[in-house]
Amino acid sequence: MSNQIKGELNILKYEGNDLLETIDIAAVEYPLTIYLEDEEFATIVCSPTNIKELVIGFLASEGLIRNVDQISSIDIDEHRGYAYVYLKIKQSINKEFFSKRMIGSCCGKSRQFYFYNDANTAKTIMSRHTISINECFSLMKQLQECSIDFQQTGGVHNAALCTNDNILFSYSDIGRHNALDKLYGHVLQHNITVKDKVIVFSGRISSEVILKISKIGGGILISKSAPTTLGIELAKDLGITVIGFVRKEKLNIYSHPERIIDAMHLPHLEMKT
Amino acid sequence: MSNQIKGELNILKYEGNDLLETIDIAAVEYPLTIYLEDEEFATIVCSPTNIKELVIGFLASEGLIRNVDQISSIDIDEHRGYAYVYLKIKQSINKEFFSKRMIGSCCGKSRQFYFYNDANTAKTIMSRHTISINECFSLMKQLQECSIDFQQTGGVHNAALCTNDNILFSYSDIGRHNALDKLYGHVLQHNITVKDKVIVFSGRISSEVILKISKIGGGILISKSAPTTLGIELAKDLGITVIGFVRKEKLNIYSHPERIIDAMHLPHLEMKT
Repeated sequence: MSNQIKGELNILKYEGNDLLETIDIAAVEYPLTIYLEDEEFATIVCSPTNIKELVIGFLASEGLIRNVDQISSIDIDEHRGYAYVYLKIKQSINKEFFSKRMIGSCCGKSRQFYFYNDANTAKTIMSRHTISINECFSLMKQLQECSIDFQQTGGVHNAALCTNDNILFSYSDIGRHNALDKLYGHVLQHNITVKDKVIVFSGRISSEVILKISKIGGGILISKSAPTTLGIELAKDLGITVIGFVRKEKLNIYSHPERIIDAMHLPHLEMKT
Repeated sequence: MSNQIKGELNILKYEGNDLLETIDIAAVEYPLTIYLEDEEFATIVCSPTNIKELVIGFLASEGLIRNVDQISSIDIDEHRGYAYVYLKIKQSINKEFFSKRMIGSCCGKSRQFYFYNDANTAKTIMSRHTISINECFSLMKQLQECSIDFQQTGGVHNAALCTNDNILFSYSDIGRHNALDKLYGHVLQHNITVKDKVIVFSGRISSEVILKISKIGGGILISKSAPTTLGIELAKDLGITVIGFVRKEKLNIYSHPERIIDAMHLPHLEMKT
């Protein structure tokens, strides 16, 4: 299998009333199966880049680890699409529980998942970090400028960890959850503090994205896309400031505006829940 | 819970250097748990519309039914988000097998799923139905015109079954797979022939979307979005004509151009695989 985020396809392109055979660039879709203690644990359909970060972030998102020191080893067979993970302290994987995470709207998991597992890993964000609206626009612009892959393939999401001024690092994946898991994996690998940073993201803000941001420890999420109503309910509960639909000179603040410098000074700071 | 595809949020909107409290429209995210023969089977995060079609299409996509006559009853508790399904002939659900369908890039399931379950339900499409490029543009235009929800919420996918000239019916959902499952449910409920029709879709063409199109029996798929490389490999194998990236006066033909009237007469009909 290719270790590339994009591949080539022979296509017929219709443009200007002409139909021509040409080569197109498309996102590569790569199934990665994770074995945990020699048992098949999960298969993630992903972009085949930064697989180690993805595996670490996925295990942390699933609540199986809290830091990389809990991992004994990760061996990745990139060619066949397998990752073999051993933990230092063996986790007994409750099969009955894991079988409850089923199908989502777009990687959504189950309500049960929210109630059971997330109760252990999602946490209310207490960060006092603040950002200005102009900084939000600037960070989104930086994310878009560095995401050539989306422009070429029309199908890759990006997630970046940023200071108020700059992108520190960013990850791409055909799955928006995978892009966030890669970011989470990097955070854990390098033991990075997130509460004084900003997460900038290209994808829709669903309840599951919000749960992941809370696990990563982010207090401010900026996204190009729209939220769902359930996503915003959770963001309010979990103390996450959500800024969405960032386009040109417009944006929407959906929750916890007390972290937005421009909103602090306004009389109508209170938002109805 | 609301039986609506969209809901209202109180937000702060920044526009033209002003920050104003206003009401925004966002997609509703609704977790629906399906019980099969009194056992919890799956939770689908979806838009809370056309739940019966969604349940029927989902069961068929999963290979549990082939037609609605195999269903004894479906009771839907819309308020709490539960659907209770009984089949005429009890299926023994292999839990070990179902636990293998885990996390996808964006609803992607596992490679195992392709190999095991899809081998029974995915079928090669032999349809000789054809379409012209102008008809493709016209159908995509019709889908976009009827999808006011996307324009309002920025987050709803659409799937429509069409003749070459007109949309017969279309379904919306926050999950692109759910939109297709609702369409599939409608097809089964009304025993509609699909091989002489066209499926028009708003979402990315992943391997899983292609498998679903094959189960529904569609020979021609038109999408606004881009494919993945694996999606196109499967479309070639399964005999599905994929037309993607339909924008303004441009489109790409990714597989089986023999069903495109404008491509038939060209000398370079052969596409490399």
